[in-house]
Amino acid sequence: MRSLAILTALGVCAFATQAAAQSWRPPAPSERCPSKWGAADEPGSGNHMKPANVLRAAKLIKTGEAFELAHVLGRDMPLNPGRQYDVHTKRSTGPFGTNQRYSNEELIVSEIGQVGTQFDGFTHQAIDRLLYNCVKMDEVASRNGFTKLGMEKVGTLMTRGVLIDIAGLKGVDVLPIDYEITVADLQQALQKQGVRIEPGDAVLIYTGWSKHWGVDNKLYTSGCPGIGVAAAEWLIKQDPMLLGADNWPVEIAPNPDKSINLPVHNIALTVNGVHLLENLVLEPLARARAYEFAFIMQPLKLQGATGSTVAPTAIR
Amino acid sequence: MRSLAILTALGVCAFATQAAAQSWRPPAPSERCPSKWGAADEPGSGNHMKPANVLRAAKLIKTGEAFELAHVLGRDMPLNPGRQYDVHTKRSTGPFGTNQRYSNEELIVSEIGQVGTQFDGFTHQAIDRLLYNCVKMDEVASRNGFTKLGMEKVGTLMTRGVLIDIAGLKGVDVLPIDYEITVADLQQALQKQGVRIEPGDAVLIYTGWSKHWGVDNKLYTSGCPGIGVAAAEWLIKQDPMLLGADNWPVEIAPNPDKSINLPVHNIALTVNGVHLLENLVLEPLARARAYEFAFIMQPLKLQGATGSTVAPTAIR
Amino acid sequence: MRSLAILTALGVCAFATQAAAQSWRPPAPSERCPSKWGAADEPGSGNHMKPANVLRAAKLIKTGEAFELAHVLGRDMPLNPGRQYDVHTKRSTGPFGTNQRYSNEELIVSEIGQVGTQFDGFTHQAIDRLLYNCVKMDEVASRNGFTKLGMEKVGTLMTRGVLIDIAGLKGVDVLPIDYEITVADLQQALQKQGVRIEPGDAVLIYTGWSKHWGVDNKLYTSGCPGIGVAAAEWLIKQDPMLLGADNWPVEIAPNPDKSINLPVHNIALTVNGVHLLENLVLEPLARARAYEFAFIMQPLKLQGATGSTVAPTAIR
Amino acid sequence: MRSLAILTALGVCAFATQAAAQSWRPPAPSERCPSKWGAADEPGSGNHMKPANVLRAAKLIKTGEAFELAHVLGRDMPLNPGRQYDVHTKRSTGPFGTNQRYSNEELIVSEIGQVGTQFDGFTHQAIDRLLYNCVKMDEVASRNGFTKLGMEKVGTLMTRGVLIDIAGLKGVDVLPIDYEITVADLQQALQKQGVRIEPGDAVLIYTGWSKHWGVDNKLYTSGCPGIGVAAAEWLIKQDPMLLGADNWPVEIAPNPDKSINLPVHNIALTVNGVHLLENLVLEPLARARAYEFAFIMQPLKLQGATGSTVAPTAIR
Repeated sequence: MRSLAILTALGVCAFATQAAAQSWRPPAPSERCPSKWGAADEPGSGNHMKPANVLRAAKLIKTGEAFELAHVLGRDMPLNPGRQYDVHTKRSTGPFGTNQRYSNEELIVSEIGQVGTQFDGFTHQAIDRLLYNCVKMDEVASRNGFTKLGMEKVGTLMTRGVLIDIAGLKGVDVLPIDYEITVADLQQALQKQGVRIEPGDAVLIYTGWSKHWGVDNKLYTSGCPGIGVAAAEWLIKQDPMLLGADNWPVEIAPNPDKSINLPVHNIALTVNGVHLLENLVLEPLARARAYEFAFIMQPLKLQGATGSTVAPTAIR
Repeated sequence: MRSLAILTALGVCAFATQAAAQSWRPPAPSERCPSKWGAADEPGSGNHMKPANVLRAAKLIKTGEAFELAHVLGRDMPLNPGRQYDVHTKRSTGPFGTNQRYSNEELIVSEIGQVGTQFDGFTHQAIDRLLYNCVKMDEVASRNGFTKLGMEKVGTLMTRGVLIDIAGLKGVDVLPIDYEITVADLQQALQKQGVRIEPGDAVLIYTGWSKHWGVDNKLYTSGCPGIGVAAAEWLIKQDPMLLGADNWPVEIAPNPDKSINLPVHNIALTVNGVHLLENLVLEPLARARAYEFAFIMQPLKLQGATGSTVAPTAIR
Repeated sequence: MRSLAILTALGVCAFATQAAAQSWRPPAPSERCPSKWGAADEPGSGNHMKPANVLRAAKLIKTGEAFELAHVLGRDMPLNPGRQYDVHTKRSTGPFGTNQRYSNEELIVSEIGQVGTQFDGFTHQAIDRLLYNCVKMDEVASRNGFTKLGMEKVGTLMTRGVLIDIAGLKGVDVLPIDYEITVADLQQALQKQGVRIEPGDAVLIYTGWSKHWGVDNKLYTSGCPGIGVAAAEWLIKQDPMLLGADNWPVEIAPNPDKSINLPVHNIALTVNGVHLLENLVLEPLARARAYEFAFIMQPLKLQGATGSTVAPTAIR
Repeated sequence: MRSLAILTALGVCAFATQAAAQSWRPPAPSERCPSKWGAADEPGSGNHMKPANVLRAAKLIKTGEAFELAHVLGRDMPLNPGRQYDVHTKRSTGPFGTNQRYSNEELIVSEIGQVGTQFDGFTHQAIDRLLYNCVKMDEVASRNGFTKLGMEKVGTLMTRGVLIDIAGLKGVDVLPIDYEITVADLQQALQKQGVRIEPGDAVLIYTGWSKHWGVDNKLYTSGCPGIGVAAAEWLIKQDPMLLGADNWPVEIAPNPDKSINLPVHNIALTVNGVHLLENLVLEPLARARAYEFAFIMQPLKLQGATGSTVAPTAIR
């Protein structure tokens, strides 16, 4: 593997023609609501979870090889500001019975839906206090979760998964921190890999940024390469079940247009009802050139929650 | 459906010939260690997770119909003594950017590995301070998890699943609280259903006890019908990947032999390294007579944890 | 001591002439703001904490006898709905050094400002989203506390304390759950005790309700006797440093006028900036006929918090 | 005030004659138990809390001037490794009643007994698994606190307080991080100040280290000047109620003898049953030359806890 020092130098050339940052304004409520799934719809892109898509995915399982797409949830993982993950072992107070049984548990204190490899639901983000499908955030929020659009309603997602290896396309281990993935990048990578995005796919983008996970956590969360507004809008037009990446927000952060803040979160979750999947482990897939696979994920049924830490799998 | 009042009356007859409770003593460390998987082994029955078993499961997916096997994690779920599950919504402090973005999260305080539908790892239980494979509990315990046998090492489990409907065999909605499932019950139910247990299977037992979940939580956790020592030992001889049930400890509780305490936890987890899966939702499978299916489960990668709340799926 | 059974019977007679419940409407913001302490004032009745009052209290210390006015914070204390108090012992991971040192701590998860014997600050309560001195609740609230009127600003309160023994006046051990203490009750009790309220006093009211603490926690939090609107307004006219009682809200709960909800909380905290002190242990003071004493309390300096659990003392 | 840069230079000279570090071995259990307070004693130096000492303190209150000795508990305070302090505001879900009442609280997740200005109880420290008075740590520890020697038993401590200003004696703002306060230092400072230590006093030592609190938290917890073995043993011979300082462990850290670990914790808490009081705010006392005062502290009645965050006061 080439050294990161060299890659950084190469990167300057490889990314020289990057387009200027485009700005974005949220569509008005009347333009974005009701969503294409209907006025009372809650699942959004989760509507793609149906027997036909499960079968489509199952047919891709040919060797039984499974790739774990989640990081370990531990003390040395990066955490975004304001997030914590604390495990307090509860050592046994036994023994119980003549079998001298002991029982250990642990208390965990964490934004459990928003740490580690994580899946975003639609209560996570709002535009001007309106959630997906223009549900009023303040009306459905309670102290103990949201009464609509909660994570417990998602259920297992199984569909065809597609990896788009942008780091590979660019010939680098890790994309530079300020690299915005373009529509052309996505199209060229797909062409190079010989795969196409189909409706209902789980689309996973490899940036290489995960190489910093647990190695330089401060760098990891300080920003990242990723898709911007244009690439997100193009991907969403392909009608995916979800968009994922091996960085923390799927999208480039901060956005090149400093006036807008994580716009892809709003474009995907709020405007279009498309789930996001963050902090993935995709390097093994990229190395194995596993570009098409059965994607399986089981979000926790956290009532009213904004997201779920997950441990998804790619199987081929 | 017949009323529970009538069922209780019927139950008295149906279970009159139940065998006397058998006692159990843990085998000595020299008898139980090393485990059949080897002296340094940590995965135990998780060793069955391999491509051949994944393929075996995938071939059972014929319609793409998915059954969710997990309860919702919410405020009205039953909790065993000493367990808590608290969700504290973190309302957004936005707006951020000209896109007027808001971001919500939630803090969860919970024995997250041991609430709701839950999967037991091998640090959860010990005999006389020895874990599976005679690992010394006190040597691997830290304040923040266990340094061996932790939940992060399990990974996705996908294999053939088998449902054994004992409530159905007995013709009742719910087995009586003190009913110990016998080896004969298991064999008769399997014969009636026309399925056999194969090595590496996820074996799920339906007792009907889940009908009390969220309805009478005090009753739910006060005890339950389930397998006892004999049935557990017979099942483990079949070499399963895991044993699950729609009650809170898989096994009958309290054990008919009052001198022993949750012995199946020790037999499965400590002596044989066989995982347990508790608080399952199995009624839809039983109703659909779905006795054979692809079983998929993704335990969270909680470093050093004793278990994981899970949201497993049966697909056929 | 007479039995509670007899007391209950007596109580029916003793309280037969109770006046009808009076209603209350919050004064308009223009009527209640600025407070008498000024427009930018944050301490409210805490302004009484000054050298002269400290000296006034110190002169009451004649024997050095100290009365502990706080309940133990433990697992068997009553908790109002939505409150928790969990202690997780962190056993030592030593030994450290040749001195074989071990170090234990504990994690506490609790609404620590609002459990046990507790002292209410001015961010605890609002009328129509306005706090004391009409500070806008939504403008000063953050995820991690309030930026104004926080508990860290209170500091030690030391002043003359006065006990008003209403249970004693009525000749009962415990006032009935629905007994509203009247202005006449307060005046008669003070006259009987031979003490007067002076400006800046800590005024503590004994109802006997604390006898249910830890004995019948469900009863304890289900309601309580206490002052109502009229008594609160009379007491506040005496210009106290704080109002306390041996029940959970100081005031009668629920209010006899079912349309208003804990109005004394608003009258004291929101309208007049007078602190409340709840769940006191006052029986030893009442038994010792200790009606006048040095009152000392040290609220925790919890930045931005709404209150503090406290362990106040009466010394004479 | 002289600049810290100059002070550091001066410090090199001022501290040149510092004695070599002395080592320490814990006395055997038979040498240290029973304690001087008796075999079943739990209060230790807390036995000094009695009316005579309260009166002795009250007589020192001459002007009513109160000094707050506690830091604010907030997000920007230093935390020793493994400690956390998180406040989660619980915004109101009102309005309640026609009075439009709102009610806010906060959940706090913290080692609340061991953060901020903190008071150490006797379960906090052990020598070779034995606590004060040779109570067996493992026998009295539970998941939810200790069954003996818990913080709930301490109660209010009010006694004469004495400040020993070592920074002032040395003519520096802050003692160097590796400065061990000697017996001679203590004696000279007391002589200079014209005060003597009496039995039952709260002895507070000013090092200036608190100047780093909230300014350079990493430095603050990285070590500190303080008393060593010799000074601790001399102070304990004076029979104090407690020893406190404006640093995090009262004692010098790390100890100059690298083989022993926080030995003063063991000498005070474990061997002699003398409480420690850490992270004090003493600069205002030093500036005011307030060397003698009424010391008042109200530890929280945390059942079974190892310590308590506190907000003590000095009044003169």
